[in-house]
Amino acid sequence: MKFTKMHGAGNDFVLFNGLEQKIDDYGKLALQVCDRHFSVGGDGMMVVEKSNIADMKMIYFNSDGSQGEMCGNGIRCFAKFVYDNKILDKEIFTVETLAGIKTIWLDVEKDRVKSVKVNMGKPIFNAKDIPVAYKEQRVIEKNIEINGQKIIFSSVLVGVPHTVIFVDSINDIDINELGRKIENHPIFPKKTNVNFVEINSRNSINVYTWERGAGRTLACGTGCCSSVVVGNVLNKLDKKVEVRAEGGIIEVEIKDEFEIFMKGTATTICVGEFKQF
Amino acid sequence: MKFTKMHGAGNDFVLFNGLEQKIDDYGKLALQVCDRHFSVGGDGMMVVEKSNIADMKMIYFNSDGSQGEMCGNGIRCFAKFVYDNKILDKEIFTVETLAGIKTIWLDVEKDRVKSVKVNMGKPIFNAKDIPVAYKEQRVIEKNIEINGQKIIFSSVLVGVPHTVIFVDSINDIDINELGRKIENHPIFPKKTNVNFVEINSRNSINVYTWERGAGRTLACGTGCCSSVVVGNVLNKLDKKVEVRAEGGIIEVEIKDEFEIFMKGTATTICVGEFKQF
Repeated sequence: MKFTKMHGAGNDFVLFNGLEQKIDDYGKLALQVCDRHFSVGGDGMMVVEKSNIADMKMIYFNSDGSQGEMCGNGIRCFAKFVYDNKILDKEIFTVETLAGIKTIWLDVEKDRVKSVKVNMGKPIFNAKDIPVAYKEQRVIEKNIEINGQKIIFSSVLVGVPHTVIFVDSINDIDINELGRKIENHPIFPKKTNVNFVEINSRNSINVYTWERGAGRTLACGTGCCSSVVVGNVLNKLDKKVEVRAEGGIIEVEIKDEFEIFMKGTATTICVGEFKQF
Repeated sequence: MKFTKMHGAGNDFVLFNGLEQKIDDYGKLALQVCDRHFSVGGDGMMVVEKSNIADMKMIYFNSDGSQGEMCGNGIRCFAKFVYDNKILDKEIFTVETLAGIKTIWLDVEKDRVKSVKVNMGKPIFNAKDIPVAYKEQRVIEKNIEINGQKIIFSSVLVGVPHTVIFVDSINDIDINELGRKIENHPIFPKKTNVNFVEINSRNSINVYTWERGAGRTLACGTGCCSSVVVGNVLNKLDKKVEVRAEGGIIEVEIKDEFEIFMKGTATTICVGEFKQF
């Protein structure tokens, strides 16, 4: 069985061309191939399939075998895979995901994709929809108490629930401890990703993300987007911001009515074939 | 650049055929290819090379870029790689390592290696050579105090320094906490691997290993050997023992004057080619 391993800002994936090989059980395959010791290893698995409503369909599964609606770093890898392998000969195209149809713009150099821009759609601010069990409609700059410490947070839905916390210095934060506590706080009925944001300037921030169900990761595409959205609501940031995650840099731009555009690189690590013997 | 990913009891490696492709800087390559997010990922890297004193030479580097003398689970993968890829057409052969020449016996079925037996040589009991800063010559069933708790330990050198601790129930042990504390205790000038051993019967044990510099791993070949050696010195075990590690089962047999034979499987996960673009 042929595969390609790729990463977007250190978020790594095993990809399959579902047009060439049939996959019976996505969840089972993801669990198997994402194992870092007994298999190739990855944060997630993606499969390219035909779509009836867009140019391509992206199937995304997490390393624990559960299906994911969408993955910001994943879709950039998906787009590069589709173009570099000549599955699709377009530099602008649409991808069907469980979080809706996403439009893609490629930066191509010498027949190879250098970077990918994705229209990530609009964030949802409504507390009920994020969801946050909160009395007010919007959850912007509210207080929560963790370990007896008052924390100011804001929450939005960008594909998945995101909580954004601005801090003076990321290095002073115990991300694992705070991330886990906030993720599992009863105010978040479906839990939440937690982004700790340090502002360098109005167009540059550092973001460290604690991902729901995955813990601390090297970069979270939707987390970078959420951080810039909240920074714009609070007028702390400009519309176009360079976001530095641990695994790489992602550019986020907010257009009319909070439409989010994310741009970043995607890298092919290796191509291979499974041999279980 | 062509590679193969393999594992032995969940201890995983990226292998290269050094006869086909020249490698300039082993340490740099190991650091790169063992990275689990930006590359293939593995606990270590091995390169097949010609030897002037044995049938083959095994180059072993850890994921942190440092060279390793020898790796018990690694050498089984190395042996399978060499035979399955027809680099060597022998079912009994010798491998040069930094810990001396090791003899290998293969179990072959339909042209494929099913399991590998390795003569691991003899353990060293001398405190100075292990090394353990201890007043007596042998370090068998001695006391150490960790977190105010008295722990009975024994230490031997099997390629690397190993400390063996018999426990009533492995599940009652905080392996990470105790492992780290013992590894770094001043009594071990070159640190130590730590093996927690639960006895099922005289020929079956469970072993969880905390590896020096690597932390808790799924299986440690030399740790399984050391556990059986100490179990024999204390007459707690028979000469032939099935060792259950978290990642798989390894068979260890002690022959005359403590010569150690280790037998276990090795599995090919995938073959591939690096594409960094």
